[in-house]
Amino acid sequence: MSKSSDYQHTQCIGVIGTGDFGRAFSVRASSAGYRVVIGSRDPDRRTNFLSKVDPALRGIPVVTIQECIEKSNIIVFALSSEDQRSLALAQQDRLKGKIVVDVSNPTTQNATDQSQAEQLQRILPHTHVIKAFNTVSAYALGEDGNARASRSVFVCGNEASARAEVSKLAASMALQVVDMGRVASARSLEKSMQTMFAGWGWATIVTCLLFVFWLVFTIVVYYVIRDSYTWVRFPTNVINKVFGCMAITLLGLCYLPGCIVAIVQLVRGTKNKALPQWMCTWLQMRKQLGLFGLLFALAHCCLSLVILNPSYQSSWYENAAVTIPANHTGDLVVSISSRMNWVGETTILFGTLSTALYCILGITSLPSVGRLLNWREWNLVQTYMGLLCMLFACTHITIKGHRSWISASFVDLLQRKDMLSQLIPWAVLLIRIILWIPCINSRLWSIRRGRVEKNTQDVEIGTTSTIVNGKSAV
Amino acid sequence: MSKSSDYQHTQCIGVIGTGDFGRAFSVRASSAGYRVVIGSRDPDRRTNFLSKVDPALRGIPVVTIQECIEKSNIIVFALSSEDQRSLALAQQDRLKGKIVVDVSNPTTQNATDQSQAEQLQRILPHTHVIKAFNTVSAYALGEDGNARASRSVFVCGNEASARAEVSKLAASMALQVVDMGRVASARSLEKSMQTMFAGWGWATIVTCLLFVFWLVFTIVVYYVIRDSYTWVRFPTNVINKVFGCMAITLLGLCYLPGCIVAIVQLVRGTKNKALPQWMCTWLQMRKQLGLFGLLFALAHCCLSLVILNPSYQSSWYENAAVTIPANHTGDLVVSISSRMNWVGETTILFGTLSTALYCILGITSLPSVGRLLNWREWNLVQTYMGLLCMLFACTHITIKGHRSWISASFVDLLQRKDMLSQLIPWAVLLIRIILWIPCINSRLWSIRRGRVEKNTQDVEIGTTSTIVNGKSAV
Amino acid sequence: MSKSSDYQHTQCIGVIGTGDFGRAFSVRASSAGYRVVIGSRDPDRRTNFLSKVDPALRGIPVVTIQECIEKSNIIVFALSSEDQRSLALAQQDRLKGKIVVDVSNPTTQNATDQSQAEQLQRILPHTHVIKAFNTVSAYALGEDGNARASRSVFVCGNEASARAEVSKLAASMALQVVDMGRVASARSLEKSMQTMFAGWGWATIVTCLLFVFWLVFTIVVYYVIRDSYTWVRFPTNVINKVFGCMAITLLGLCYLPGCIVAIVQLVRGTKNKALPQWMCTWLQMRKQLGLFGLLFALAHCCLSLVILNPSYQSSWYENAAVTIPANHTGDLVVSISSRMNWVGETTILFGTLSTALYCILGITSLPSVGRLLNWREWNLVQTYMGLLCMLFACTHITIKGHRSWISASFVDLLQRKDMLSQLIPWAVLLIRIILWIPCINSRLWSIRRGRVEKNTQDVEIGTTSTIVNGKSAV
Repeated sequence: MSKSSDYQHTQCIGVIGTGDFGRAFSVRASSAGYRVVIGSRDPDRRTNFLSKVDPALRGIPVVTIQECIEKSNIIVFALSSEDQRSLALAQQDRLKGKIVVDVSNPTTQNATDQSQAEQLQRILPHTHVIKAFNTVSAYALGEDGNARASRSVFVCGNEASARAEVSKLAASMALQVVDMGRVASARSLEKSMQTMFAGWGWATIVTCLLFVFWLVFTIVVYYVIRDSYTWVRFPTNVINKVFGCMAITLLGLCYLPGCIVAIVQLVRGTKNKALPQWMCTWLQMRKQLGLFGLLFALAHCCLSLVILNPSYQSSWYENAAVTIPANHTGDLVVSISSRMNWVGETTILFGTLSTALYCILGITSLPSVGRLLNWREWNLVQTYMGLLCMLFACTHITIKGHRSWISASFVDLLQRKDMLSQLIPWAVLLIRIILWIPCINSRLWSIRRGRVEKNTQDVEIGTTSTIVNGKSAV
Repeated sequence: MSKSSDYQHTQCIGVIGTGDFGRAFSVRASSAGYRVVIGSRDPDRRTNFLSKVDPALRGIPVVTIQECIEKSNIIVFALSSEDQRSLALAQQDRLKGKIVVDVSNPTTQNATDQSQAEQLQRILPHTHVIKAFNTVSAYALGEDGNARASRSVFVCGNEASARAEVSKLAASMALQVVDMGRVASARSLEKSMQTMFAGWGWATIVTCLLFVFWLVFTIVVYYVIRDSYTWVRFPTNVINKVFGCMAITLLGLCYLPGCIVAIVQLVRGTKNKALPQWMCTWLQMRKQLGLFGLLFALAHCCLSLVILNPSYQSSWYENAAVTIPANHTGDLVVSISSRMNWVGETTILFGTLSTALYCILGITSLPSVGRLLNWREWNLVQTYMGLLCMLFACTHITIKGHRSWISASFVDLLQRKDMLSQLIPWAVLLIRIILWIPCINSRLWSIRRGRVEKNTQDVEIGTTSTIVNGKSAV
Repeated sequence: MSKSSDYQHTQCIGVIGTGDFGRAFSVRASSAGYRVVIGSRDPDRRTNFLSKVDPALRGIPVVTIQECIEKSNIIVFALSSEDQRSLALAQQDRLKGKIVVDVSNPTTQNATDQSQAEQLQRILPHTHVIKAFNTVSAYALGEDGNARASRSVFVCGNEASARAEVSKLAASMALQVVDMGRVASARSLEKSMQTMFAGWGWATIVTCLLFVFWLVFTIVVYYVIRDSYTWVRFPTNVINKVFGCMAITLLGLCYLPGCIVAIVQLVRGTKNKALPQWMCTWLQMRKQLGLFGLLFALAHCCLSLVILNPSYQSSWYENAAVTIPANHTGDLVVSISSRMNWVGETTILFGTLSTALYCILGITSLPSVGRLLNWREWNLVQTYMGLLCMLFACTHITIKGHRSWISASFVDLLQRKDMLSQLIPWAVLLIRIILWIPCINSRLWSIRRGRVEKNTQDVEIGTTSTIVNGKSAV
């Protein structure tokens, strides 16, 4: 049957490099039905070592590098970047017309701004250099054949037929292939393995700055201005206040940019003007800010439970102390604890509800959970549940602090972190309520659907319409 | 090389609509190696705007809609549903023989019960209308080329070759293609983006009804019948009781239908009779009930920690008060707190263990974790760990309440939520133990393997056998 | 159009077996555009039953088994293993030249060590037996057409064209196909569904042994040697100590093998010698040990909050008791609670921070989250954040225990679980710091890059280089 030749893998794969990746690759390609040879400087000693390390390698011949290249159509360079280049230079002629697969991840970005695969292609102009497998680890390859955790292989290279060969190899190894086009794509492939926590940079900086702000503010108010706290209370009691402020502020910063964009669009009367760069950055880091906020909220929840007793939170309890009269006739039974009053009970209820909603928001941020939601569900959870969470959090703070706010002077209020920390959330809630007023809401949506205001003759076949997939809602 | 023509993408993609999706699509298709032109009413003004919004768009020509259609083989309608239809009507002739891709998600189900793609196909009978990309957001397209988070594109349309063209386009854009057949499939594709929280409806209703029941029950017992609580204790102390009852009841409701099905099968002697619809609904919402229950369990755990002091839980502590005699000679040292007695310590241990197991159950419900488990592992976790969790929870309640149950009259018992809330769980545990009795267990499994009882001459080649993949176990 | 014949599915699929899987498969294949017939012993009675169970089945004809086989090219055996074999024996002739799909998961490993598919192939030498769909449940097939949760189908069988037919069928059903080659692969496919919690075995054993050790140790010290605790304090107070010891010890055991490997490599001067088997097992179970540790850490956190009062933790509070003088003139106000001193506050701060970091480590272990990280990010989180978590945990214990350690004799120290439990973590931290000393660090990395020490003439084109994808870092 001629058709089945596709599946018999008459081709031979040469693997040069016997590190973790080279070994795992050899075993996997071999069990996928390919003939595999391993190339080594010193085949005899190496054979011995390999069979000890992994019995699955025993059937795979270890030959010299020269022989390995000659025997194979596809040669996998399972080497470090520098070694790949020296090997390529040394074997330029033998590699002519063959397919070389670069699986490496250069650890540092080199000065030339070229990817490793592009450099190899320059050294080997008559060879088809393919970048592939760099996102797959030896560990992932090493899992037993079934590999429930499917992994993606991004394949790029100038020669389409070579790309097809390597794609077939990867597919046979039960990996999921993505064709990435010409070898220039290797740049982004290599870069994506070098960048650290893309998208987290600005969110981390903002969070750190905010943390420093609240820390300094709290220390100044409690230790410098009022001098009411001892330093013994710093690690838990004071830090806990900072955590609480961080949680509510970060939650507010998540929802603020959406409000600002809506106002800007209403004022401009169009959504077709570019937003400033800092605004785009802010919009993009909302998820990260939210997750940082969740972390602070959980830490705040935990530490609050620690210090929940009449000594720390005297205003939450019915009585924080008992009075023993000087002369009491008969035995006096003194309760050694106290129930909470309505301030304490209500504060805690709203704090708990708020944290619960915040956790649900966090769980829907998990990629595997978020992928189950369509955009309307996502929108409902992230917008309405998020705002409800914020409302509960604000209520939590307001009930907690309202008594001292009433009697406080303006200067006092400026010193109260519970007052200041909820300014942003309340502002967001207020703007949201205004935006929900029917006439404003409908105008906003008509703008977002791409109608250019005050220019109605312009609106023909709506080529400016932009609500597709609804994902444009900010 | 002729083969590589597959990869050079000589085709031109026309994108009409410059909203978020249209822009992101243009950039991605362009970087995948396709020629892209953007169609606009007013190309000159638009060019200016686009290059400001996204520098990656600078190389992509913006032309009139007419030119865009004429130049391209595949035209992507990145417009709202209504604008798509008016554009289609206006350009009927020019679109003849071309491929039109409908990427829209109609926000409301229209009256005709036809999908947007089907309506377009009716307007454009000589055009190949393909529904695709509707599950992919501008945001997902906009991520840098590598896109580790792979996204699925569902492609449908009447013409197979057109579907193949669009599939190739999507694959080149590093998206995962699923062929969904004829254009009629667009209905379910559009519907899946419109439905809200499919599968959560009944579970939410049941949870809400149950919550109202326990809330009313608790208020009636504590405030009306006994009049023993003040309303100050409502937000935390009383709500916490409701949360606890919700958690254990919902857990019981998760495991009850499986028991009922087993009994029904045993009584009927066959599994080949259809179950009533409400039973199927109940079976399908077990996961959702369980997750709601987990939420209540965690809230109960949190609030219980808040009120864990001798004033609230006097029966859990060695002493809740100290007695100061009228005349004490010498100083009297009074401890201001108390250790728990065995009731408190044991109640808390079992509550903690139960919550821990419940959390593990919740984590294995995460799609990405659940996918790592084969059905035997899943079964072990969800059945045995779930029952163990329920057993611990029941023990938690029994230890907590046993002293008052012993002395209580029957009427008193009916008023005790801790007694009532665990009736279902204990019933489930009892039925499970009975079902584990070897002779009953083996009979049940023979029924589930499809053997029709009392009719043995019927059992030939077991065409009724149904345990395939073991997933039929309820 | 001849090309579209690929998509019209003129083939007929026969499904034998009307259990959950057979029914779900029939509906799904039918809605994917295939003609489907269901084979049954007693078609008339069965038709009635099927249309009741699932209205979607109404259009699908139910015929005799003979007719079903004759009509179809692909026959799906949705039966248990034994029934499959008897059916195959009975219909050997009719099945000649057809494709038989084995979807079963034998529940027990049979004695012959052959897979079910291989046995079927032996019974039916002239039939193309394909193993497929065994990893897909009736439940997954039954989800509505769109099936956001994509599922993998592993296809194997000797005949490539038959494999291609079945792959096409699976792809049309919106499932993700992985070609697994010849029918021998069915062994690993079936085995993967039989094994229970692969990779968790040793970790569970180690955790259990460790738990017994700490339990016995704590009981011996607190009840036998010192006799200072009552048994009432066992369920929460003592168990909590065991949980804490478990958490820190398991965390230490996660990071210890990496240190040992580094030392071994430094001593040997090469990484090209195989490690002993127990060491490999230990390296492989680090993730599982870490997750068990996280569970204990969270339980420890929860129970610690329960017993956080001056009676249990007197050394953490400013005052655990108040003194009432014999004769006090005037009323005496006695506080019924106490603030913590610096020991309490600091211990709790570090405990909370440590738990928070541990939780982040746990979250990045979720497959869907971990897949978002490249190896450098993964490395940063798992190495540096893990070590920071361990450092905080050790600080937590040291601050808590330091006062009693200072005054303790050596024998006393050996009885202190807080001293013993942190020996491993501190050792790990110390080794890590030593390994970070520049000269040692650079030597280690040169070894890991595969340079064979003291043998420099050997180092040519680095065929021994092994840091590919960076995943070799232990």
